[in-house]
Amino acid sequence: MSLRETLTQMLEQLEGAYAVMLMGYDCIAIDEIHQGVADFDVQTMAVEYGTVIKEIRRTIEVVGAGAMEEITITTANSRMIIRVLSDEFFAAFVLPKNANLGKARYLLRAKAFELVEAVG
Amino acid sequence: MSLRETLTQMLEQLEGAYAVMLMGYDCIAIDEIHQGVADFDVQTMAVEYGTVIKEIRRTIEVVGAGAMEEITITTANSRMIIRVLSDEFFAAFVLPKNANLGKARYLLRAKAFELVEAVG
Repeated sequence: MSLRETLTQMLEQLEGAYAVMLMGYDCIAIDEIHQGVADFDVQTMAVEYGTVIKEIRRTIEVVGAGAMEEITITTANSRMIIRVLSDEFFAAFVLPKNANLGKARYLLRAKAFELVEAVG
Repeated sequence: MSLRETLTQMLEQLEGAYAVMLMGYDCIAIDEIHQGVADFDVQTMAVEYGTVIKEIRRTIEVVGAGAMEEITITTANSRMIIRVLSDEFFAAFVLPKNANLGKARYLLRAKAFELVEAVG
């Protein structure tokens, strides 16, 4: 399955989700799929959070708390869940506040290997 | 109830938790209670994450995704859950990976008002 197919399938499985994306630590999306209309800028959100994730990663190394695995950020009307896939990539769902966070977490975990494989 | 009493009660209610703390956005702990021994530096972790939280907050404002509410950061052997209490303070639990994250989330939410009141 291509990367785009995998991402599309993931988004279809999560009702209401705004976007799913695979990103590099340079904050450039390798690929991303959107659906619905969020009342905020999903793309800017992902790129800006990318910078923050690099910071968190550096912090975790300093503290010695083991490799970074997952970050969730909840605001008044959105959730973003980010899963580290490798030293180069992370995958993320952008969701409305009431979406199923547990399922997003599961999908990111379950598809981690497939996503990394698809990037090649 | 004093701030210290509230924090102590929160930590006692969450088996295995390493620490609970109330911090300002200047990354200085107003008060914090520890128990057990983590294999990483809990205090440094909290302070370093504080810097990151400021960054995330700024990002959320830029994107227009509503006020920041909660952040969880999961590493190979730890979890930190952070809840914004006001413009000045946030509260956080530092947990081992297998601790009850849902209960930590609940306690931070349930005690939010009490914590803010206690800081006065």
